[in-house]
Amino acid sequence: MGRNEEKVKALAKRHGVERVAKDVEAALANPDDTIFFDAGSTQMRVPLLTRAIEAGKHVYCEKPLSETLSESLALARLARKHGTKSGIVQDKLYLPGLRKIRMLIDAGFFGRILSVRGEFGYWVFEGDLQPAQRPSWNYRKADGGGIILDMLPHWRYVLDNLFGAVKAVTCIGATHIPHRIDESGQTYKADADDAAYATFQLEGGVIAHINSSWAVRVKRDDLVTFQVDGTHGSAVAGLTSCYTQHRVNTPRPVWNPDQPQTMQFQQQWEEVPDTQLYENGFKLQWEDFIRHVVEDEPWRYDLLEGAKGVQLAELGLQSWVERRWVDVPALSLDSTGSIDSIGSTSEEN
Amino acid sequence: MGRNEEKVKALAKRHGVERVAKDVEAALANPDDTIFFDAGSTQMRVPLLTRAIEAGKHVYCEKPLSETLSESLALARLARKHGTKSGIVQDKLYLPGLRKIRMLIDAGFFGRILSVRGEFGYWVFEGDLQPAQRPSWNYRKADGGGIILDMLPHWRYVLDNLFGAVKAVTCIGATHIPHRIDESGQTYKADADDAAYATFQLEGGVIAHINSSWAVRVKRDDLVTFQVDGTHGSAVAGLTSCYTQHRVNTPRPVWNPDQPQTMQFQQQWEEVPDTQLYENGFKLQWEDFIRHVVEDEPWRYDLLEGAKGVQLAELGLQSWVERRWVDVPALSLDSTGSIDSIGSTSEEN
Amino acid sequence: MGRNEEKVKALAKRHGVERVAKDVEAALANPDDTIFFDAGSTQMRVPLLTRAIEAGKHVYCEKPLSETLSESLALARLARKHGTKSGIVQDKLYLPGLRKIRMLIDAGFFGRILSVRGEFGYWVFEGDLQPAQRPSWNYRKADGGGIILDMLPHWRYVLDNLFGAVKAVTCIGATHIPHRIDESGQTYKADADDAAYATFQLEGGVIAHINSSWAVRVKRDDLVTFQVDGTHGSAVAGLTSCYTQHRVNTPRPVWNPDQPQTMQFQQQWEEVPDTQLYENGFKLQWEDFIRHVVEDEPWRYDLLEGAKGVQLAELGLQSWVERRWVDVPALSLDSTGSIDSIGSTSEEN
Amino acid sequence: MGRNEEKVKALAKRHGVERVAKDVEAALANPDDTIFFDAGSTQMRVPLLTRAIEAGKHVYCEKPLSETLSESLALARLARKHGTKSGIVQDKLYLPGLRKIRMLIDAGFFGRILSVRGEFGYWVFEGDLQPAQRPSWNYRKADGGGIILDMLPHWRYVLDNLFGAVKAVTCIGATHIPHRIDESGQTYKADADDAAYATFQLEGGVIAHINSSWAVRVKRDDLVTFQVDGTHGSAVAGLTSCYTQHRVNTPRPVWNPDQPQTMQFQQQWEEVPDTQLYENGFKLQWEDFIRHVVEDEPWRYDLLEGAKGVQLAELGLQSWVERRWVDVPALSLDSTGSIDSIGSTSEEN
Repeated sequence: MGRNEEKVKALAKRHGVERVAKDVEAALANPDDTIFFDAGSTQMRVPLLTRAIEAGKHVYCEKPLSETLSESLALARLARKHGTKSGIVQDKLYLPGLRKIRMLIDAGFFGRILSVRGEFGYWVFEGDLQPAQRPSWNYRKADGGGIILDMLPHWRYVLDNLFGAVKAVTCIGATHIPHRIDESGQTYKADADDAAYATFQLEGGVIAHINSSWAVRVKRDDLVTFQVDGTHGSAVAGLTSCYTQHRVNTPRPVWNPDQPQTMQFQQQWEEVPDTQLYENGFKLQWEDFIRHVVEDEPWRYDLLEGAKGVQLAELGLQSWVERRWVDVPALSLDSTGSIDSIGSTSEEN
Repeated sequence: MGRNEEKVKALAKRHGVERVAKDVEAALANPDDTIFFDAGSTQMRVPLLTRAIEAGKHVYCEKPLSETLSESLALARLARKHGTKSGIVQDKLYLPGLRKIRMLIDAGFFGRILSVRGEFGYWVFEGDLQPAQRPSWNYRKADGGGIILDMLPHWRYVLDNLFGAVKAVTCIGATHIPHRIDESGQTYKADADDAAYATFQLEGGVIAHINSSWAVRVKRDDLVTFQVDGTHGSAVAGLTSCYTQHRVNTPRPVWNPDQPQTMQFQQQWEEVPDTQLYENGFKLQWEDFIRHVVEDEPWRYDLLEGAKGVQLAELGLQSWVERRWVDVPALSLDSTGSIDSIGSTSEEN
Repeated sequence: MGRNEEKVKALAKRHGVERVAKDVEAALANPDDTIFFDAGSTQMRVPLLTRAIEAGKHVYCEKPLSETLSESLALARLARKHGTKSGIVQDKLYLPGLRKIRMLIDAGFFGRILSVRGEFGYWVFEGDLQPAQRPSWNYRKADGGGIILDMLPHWRYVLDNLFGAVKAVTCIGATHIPHRIDESGQTYKADADDAAYATFQLEGGVIAHINSSWAVRVKRDDLVTFQVDGTHGSAVAGLTSCYTQHRVNTPRPVWNPDQPQTMQFQQQWEEVPDTQLYENGFKLQWEDFIRHVVEDEPWRYDLLEGAKGVQLAELGLQSWVERRWVDVPALSLDSTGSIDSIGSTSEEN
Repeated sequence: MGRNEEKVKALAKRHGVERVAKDVEAALANPDDTIFFDAGSTQMRVPLLTRAIEAGKHVYCEKPLSETLSESLALARLARKHGTKSGIVQDKLYLPGLRKIRMLIDAGFFGRILSVRGEFGYWVFEGDLQPAQRPSWNYRKADGGGIILDMLPHWRYVLDNLFGAVKAVTCIGATHIPHRIDESGQTYKADADDAAYATFQLEGGVIAHINSSWAVRVKRDDLVTFQVDGTHGSAVAGLTSCYTQHRVNTPRPVWNPDQPQTMQFQQQWEEVPDTQLYENGFKLQWEDFIRHVVEDEPWRYDLLEGAKGVQLAELGLQSWVERRWVDVPALSLDSTGSIDSIGSTSEEN
């Protein structure tokens, strides 16, 4: 189903799908269709999922769940009330690079994990010399743009699931490029944040720092990289590759500014080989959800998890405004969803 | 002069130096010796420099100037009162890598500078499997250890002099490795911070984030790297090398987790060649200071500049405790040196 | 429409074009056909375009516009008189390599441009050992051959539009290969120039030197290359690729004939990446012209621009004969089109 | 012998030379010293060589012989009058790269040579961002600077001896960088030509074009390259290396701007291997001259040859001013040395 029926039909035909629909109500009325999958715009997500849940469908959707924590929680509660099974895309966890990190954790490779460094992003062209490669709405606040709202939901589930539940965040955003050129060639004011520098405290004492930016040039292995340092070893993962250095392979470099560095640090790491087929992450997660619906397989990424992502984005924005660390309250279906703006942080740490 | 006269004599002989001394007072009494250079321990710096200044010497010293801002300022004022010329080591500015960054700035290569990412440090062995490569006092609070006190003074003059005066700091420290083995083979409690994750706001709007750590493994070009991103170009400098990417050479990568990254991002940068002899930075700065003393050449790195480094370390430690951004007040010889612990930060920004 | 109707029909069928014509007069009589596109031989251009313009068509054509400046100007004036919109192919400007040069200029990458070096051409086989790869008429004067007449019109619009209006030219031609073998296996006298060595002075002080030759072997990046040197950076473009070297990346080589060159100069340049789809230049320009005709979009490459190309070829030939620099008078629809053969050049410079 | 006796003594000692002198007259008076070698400044060459010749010495010297043709010829005549054997440095002929070209010529590799393309030079830093790598006098007219005076003498003997006597020249100079910073850090007006674009007609019909520039960045094999194209093969030589392409190895490239160039043109050339030891050219030529003096071996590079170099520089400068081709009259010891400024060029060609 889609706004443009012709396009949907063409797409369906290309992929051998026989049924398409143009009317949501009619579609929801069909009791044979048991799952509603929403991959539409963020602004439409709450009303669409609400109708689907009320129509008795299981629901699956793109992130972010909505633009506010309170709406997100309301939706999660509605799903509970209706006994609906729910899922939300958390694709980064399925990146081959992060699956290799998961494997390293399971192997005890890191010993005790100490810290995580993330670098995300690349240079999004302003549109003057080179055509811009991302839609202009991403850079306008009024249209739901902003890298904090976009990326902190991702970092929430990555950190929670791999390195420890996020307990506190400090985040500063920036709009490095204040004017850009849109799809029609017009200069517009880019007022949404295009970079975010965020530090996180995780349960268990790990410190994570992640830079996210659309105004950075890439001198690293990949468009996103995570460096994990532990007592027994370290690893750096990109989208698909992952390199490790065990404590027994850790070099003893010399600080000598009087001659060029003689160590080739990049070459002192060993690649984690592909030992399986890494299928597309969106597909894998979708298949997992279907098994959850049909065979009642265990499932973790429900709407409450989606709400946690929105929560972290909200708290990151709050931290930026209040110029302080903000704690991340535990979230449950019975949470209020209102954020303590006084910040009773000092007692808790 | 040194505590161990035999060692000093041997060193002097090796370098063709004829005079050595064992008694500070006697040495300070010789009117033909006009400069006192202190490269001793931090704790001894204040009393030694005080006596030298009062004896009418010009003074030059290692960093940090002292362990507290108030002592540092007092020393700077004493130098002013006595008309003493003073200097403090700020060696990182003389690193070939950062001199190339300076050249890029002078060339207007970056356009408007947006952000600076610094990564400093390497893995300091705990002393169990491999012998530790740094003295144990660095990891004990009582002995003046701690990476914040050690490194933030460096970042102060690097940021101030290259990218914009530091206006505010948020910093979180950690003691990732709580036990280490000392020079005598004894396990000791390492209670000083061995890692610091600090973000800085600079005059002019630049955001700088620098991770400093003795518990990180190096998968980058060098032991310290600075990535500078600007509207017109970016650069990544190590101790000696520097690589650039101009906006016209900036690629248009594709985010595709279904196949290994096809772009070799590291190879899309161009080295800044050596176009001159880069002599040892300590030697260069010392020569500059001598010219300042003898020929009255302009000089910037006096004791007040040294006090600024101590100031930033103090504020970084305060930020860690108070879990918030702390503004960096302008420092002058008439500053009180007491730091506002209430943090009137929100009005000022 | 074409001389051989069968061929034209086959071609039309292959591309899904339904209408073909064999009679020009009949075709021009159809008021629904508004544009006449002439891609025929140079000798036929003037009479064909004249009839089309007089029939009220807009016209578009291949270069060169004709073999003489006076004819070219007459045609341009005829188009003005009839209110005809006109266009002429200037495809080299649409080469991805030169579009990247344009982007570098727009980015201010070069600083002040100092000089342009062009190398065009490759070895056209004589036809004895290997079959010739270009038609024999190109090498016969009587048939309109000659590399000066062929290529100087290209260099005119490339230089005018990218680096500065051409103000003066010195050119020497040569017939390096005096005998060739034609399509029927017969040896013929190749009396047209097959190489031209031309230097140009451009408005703004840039000096351009371009070698064009059908008797040169290619040890460079591409069949045509342009090296542009400016105060702040340089670039070398081929048909599609472009490499840059910024002043901050410019090396300090050593002249030492006693050992092989240690610098890999070719590797000190950084590629300008493809940041957009570079469609076929002929297609792009044709689309632009259609927009000019239908939507009145701005347009630069009219018949007067085509006349400028012919003008430069004529002046290049004159320079060869008179062994001197020849100035390039400004051309307008009211120009006489006769070239001052006395050469009042010394006063003007 | 040298102005600074101490320096000369130290140099002599380092190389095991026992005698040094401080007084030219005394040295010239010693009948056991038979050769006077002048490697001093150009301005001192005429008076010094004059005294040496008159003292009955054989003479050998650096280039250029003097700053004017008439002085140069006078000196050559003086040597003839006194029966002096004379030599002048023509080191480029001894470059391994050009000796390989000589070997290719002797082998008949090129067939008939058609054209020569020379590219000489690199970027000489202005002195602002990077220290300049050549003395500032090179860029001041009054101090004898200028690339035409510097390089055209070289091109004269290279062309004359390898490809055919130079018959005519057209040359345009430029001062691309009008301000530079000198050895003392002062900005000075650089009024000498720092680039020259010169085309030459050689006996036998070869056309040579050589760009010489101190304002060009190097994207070629070496700091100087010569491409020679002949009917049977081509070669490109640098300082030491030389690559060839025979007509049977000449490819048939396709002009297709719609896809990146598929041919790797640089890799279609085959290196000329080192088949002998290429000793330092200055040393080799000096040894040849000694053999000429002592054993009366044949010798070509006498003062008249040196005068030819100065002649070509003078004619190149004249061509620039008069904006025309200038013929190069044959030079002999009976030539007037005055250059015909009317330029009766058209009859001769």
